Amino acid sequence: MNVSANLKTVDNGVNVEALLEAREALSEMPAAAEFTWRASCEWMGGVHSRSTVEGFFGLGEEKTHKQPFVFEADHPAEFAASDFGATPVEMVLSALASCLTAGVASVAQNRGIQLRSVKATVEGDMSLYGILGIDADVRNGFRTIRVNFEIDADASEEEIAAVVAQSQKRSAVFDIVTNPGNVKVAVV
Amino acid sequence: MNVSANLKTVDNGVNVEALLEAREALSEMPAAAEFTWRASCEWMGGVHSRSTVEGFFGLGEEKTHKQPFVFEADHPAEFAASDFGATPVEMVLSALASCLTAGVASVAQNRGIQLRSVKATVEGDMSLYGILGIDADVRNGFRTIRVNFEIDADASEEEIAAVVAQSQKRSAVFDIVTNPGNVKVAVV
Repeated sequence: MNVSANLKTVDNGVNVEALLEAREALSEMPAAAEFTWRASCEWMGGVHSRSTVEGFFGLGEEKTHKQPFVFEADHPAEFAASDFGATPVEMVLSALASCLTAGVASVAQNRGIQLRSVKATVEGDMSLYGILGIDADVRNGFRTIRVNFEIDADASEEEIAAVVAQSQKRSAVFDIVTNPGNVKVAVV
Repeated sequence: MNVSANLKTVDNGVNVEALLEAREALSEMPAAAEFTWRASCEWMGGVHSRSTVEGFFGLGEEKTHKQPFVFEADHPAEFAASDFGATPVEMVLSALASCLTAGVASVAQNRGIQLRSVKATVEGDMSLYGILGIDADVRNGFRTIRVNFEIDADASEEEIAAVVAQSQKRSAVFDIVTNPGNVKVAVV
């Protein structure tokens, strides 16, 4: 069986050919590769809010998702709140897990590795001494985040580890969480 | 009208008294202030995944939300994907907006400012040259994030700006996005 035939039998549901063609095309069109992603958040009372994701800008024009996606955020009863949604920090952990998982599927497809199952468990540690303002030396966000992957695939342990490593290298959310970011907050 | 009476007429739905009592109590109990938040992410095929948030650790014991919260993540059709959910980076923008909005409600309550409406619009710019591996000098995540608040409240512009500034200062997600984070990824 040659490599080409082998690739055809692998289907992780990622259209790697289209992505490679896009990379080829966009490498000559930096303006088309500029994307602006958006969310709109409405206060619902207390610490409960509702964010909606629908439109974005990319490939030189306004685009919309097939449907709007809504994220409810709140704090749990332990924070004297209504618990109508996940906490914002749990949303970040979900985003990190899903970004790395999408990367695992894409890289595996590109390397001809058939995935059977991928599960990521993410944990983030924080002391409330930061957000409650008890100790200025304690950060508000996570001190440490652990991502543990359980992957069942037609590949060796070394190949699977290499796929996960490459996913980290190309992950937008891994970059956002591990490196400093530039955020401008304004009242308009 | 004295300050105490004024505070009673302000209701943003945030139980600030309980939070101040928690801060007082936790300042003597650092172990109880240690929280671990979690998400569990399952690959659904392609770049589509489903994250579930339910249990967390805090106040010295295992806790659960009133119900599990589920986040679908995917890529849009422009990425040759199925668009069954928001992109992970849009989830991060939603988390940032919701964290800052919860802070605005809490700080306003603590300062006796009645909110009528709060809306945050968040935009993040990125070039696909990073995640597509076209240019190693381009980051995978956002180059810039802009958060714009529209706030209707019983307060001056200066007071509203000060509430938003204090919310940034105590926001877990603002810290996560603006400062470097420690993430350990493993295959188990």
